[in-house]
Amino acid sequence: MAVYTEFSDEEFGAFIGGYDLGTVLSIKGIAEGVENSNYLLATEAGQFVLTLYEKRVDAADLPFFLGLMEHLAGRGLTCPTPVRDRAGNALNRLAGRPAAIVTFLSGLSVRRPRVEHCAAVGTALAELHLAGDGFALTRRNALSIDSWRPLYRLCHGRADEVAPNLAADIEAELDYQEARWPSGLPQGIIHADLFPDNVFFLEGRLSGLIDFYFACNDMLAYDVAISLNAWCFETDVSLNVTKARALLAGYNGVRPFTAAEIDTLPLLARGSALRFLLTRLHDWLTVPPGALVVPKNPLEYYKKLRFHRGVGDAGAYGLDR
Amino acid sequence: MAVYTEFSDEEFGAFIGGYDLGTVLSIKGIAEGVENSNYLLATEAGQFVLTLYEKRVDAADLPFFLGLMEHLAGRGLTCPTPVRDRAGNALNRLAGRPAAIVTFLSGLSVRRPRVEHCAAVGTALAELHLAGDGFALTRRNALSIDSWRPLYRLCHGRADEVAPNLAADIEAELDYQEARWPSGLPQGIIHADLFPDNVFFLEGRLSGLIDFYFACNDMLAYDVAISLNAWCFETDVSLNVTKARALLAGYNGVRPFTAAEIDTLPLLARGSALRFLLTRLHDWLTVPPGALVVPKNPLEYYKKLRFHRGVGDAGAYGLDR
Repeated sequence: MAVYTEFSDEEFGAFIGGYDLGTVLSIKGIAEGVENSNYLLATEAGQFVLTLYEKRVDAADLPFFLGLMEHLAGRGLTCPTPVRDRAGNALNRLAGRPAAIVTFLSGLSVRRPRVEHCAAVGTALAELHLAGDGFALTRRNALSIDSWRPLYRLCHGRADEVAPNLAADIEAELDYQEARWPSGLPQGIIHADLFPDNVFFLEGRLSGLIDFYFACNDMLAYDVAISLNAWCFETDVSLNVTKARALLAGYNGVRPFTAAEIDTLPLLARGSALRFLLTRLHDWLTVPPGALVVPKNPLEYYKKLRFHRGVGDAGAYGLDR
Repeated sequence: MAVYTEFSDEEFGAFIGGYDLGTVLSIKGIAEGVENSNYLLATEAGQFVLTLYEKRVDAADLPFFLGLMEHLAGRGLTCPTPVRDRAGNALNRLAGRPAAIVTFLSGLSVRRPRVEHCAAVGTALAELHLAGDGFALTRRNALSIDSWRPLYRLCHGRADEVAPNLAADIEAELDYQEARWPSGLPQGIIHADLFPDNVFFLEGRLSGLIDFYFACNDMLAYDVAISLNAWCFETDVSLNVTKARALLAGYNGVRPFTAAEIDTLPLLARGSALRFLLTRLHDWLTVPPGALVVPKNPLEYYKKLRFHRGVGDAGAYGLDR
């Protein structure tokens, strides 16, 4: 559930008056995204999403995020495109917060992905990776491996409240991954959060990708590992290898994996599982009871991490070298 | 902030398949109404609002509410109109809850009404009262004067936490109003909750009324008193008599007040203030800290109540007999 920043009629009037979008027909706060306040905005010019960026987003990153959406849309990817005001700015301010208007995408996210959804997501992720090529700005991954131990230190004291021996297990996993994390794999722009709620489908076809607010520069195959974890496990946290094979084949058909990427995929999947385990564990232990945002259970990703520990090679995901 | 009932793709598919609305293009939870879960639904047939009725709405009242919207829309009032499924039903079930689809209304609610908004609301309220005539169903006002003392009893023990001597003051007010509450005034369908967030404007003109989930049969002038309290006070809770005069003149121009209504208006305004003081006091004292719904401060209506106690006749509102 999203946070809502309220604004006065006068503030909104002054803000929207800077754009060339005609008369405003309606504006509704929508329950989308947990980081920002989002409004569905209808004007004579069409449908848009107005976003007010709240504290968890670093304002210094906004030119990267908005520029990236513009770059990707220009390369033919279906994603929200920032709308520039009459002065040519995509980023403005409303109610004391950075604010932007982006185009609205039709489509519905799926709650329970099927095999064909996984195939389409693999394809779209590879298209995103190719389309990101040539984008002038860069952003380091604030949630990559070097951030995991500091995050662990913030919550290790209470980790065992969530699962027996979890703190020691995470520490051993950090030691393992830090000793092996790869450095030579192909890099580029990654989405870094391509979960089912960030992908829209329309009549069975993928109709767009949203929420680029974790995007950054990192290993492309790490993004694949994130999506593998997000899309290919069943609700009992068992891997559906048919879905994994479909996602990886979809990706490989657009951007073929290198041999090194295939060899490293189990480790990247372990890393991705650890990253979401750690952020969810931190949120789980620090969000006050009754807060607007209900934290996600970290155990789902602990189970995924343990699954990947047992994987010998990418063949377990249906991908052969 | 609204509650959200989640539903699966399959549940939603089965539900929407019963309607003749074409392909679903998007569905977004919206932050509108605190009683129900509301979704903005776009299909090939247009824009709609899907409502799942939560526990605070009595399912037995739904045929009244939906039938009323259909009746009022048929009489030319701009309000959401229920969409019937292929079997002719306006009311169905989704995720274990009663659910209905109504047409979407363009427009924006105003946060700080100006005089012209108050005039338009007075006119629209009178039009609603005339349009309600002939509606076949009836619903007693569950929040009329006979409910106030039981509501007071639920929270009088802690009322003084909110303002010194509030419990005794409310009790004296109940005695006063119960001894004088009128019975012979013109009755009909009233909205009973026509606050600024339930009225839409587009380019300065009133474009529709929403949220009929408190509508019932009661004195028409009591509905006017509710709107007077909701629209014509400034943020410091002083009456803006120019706004009051505009609202009452707008109403009177469509449905002229009877002499008895004019004489009783100060008492009805006291009664309306007491009703919202009591429901807000109850919510204020019973909603757990950190709950999704932030209760409204009851003191605003305590101040309005005290203002109306000092009113001699409707001339104080700009309405002369």
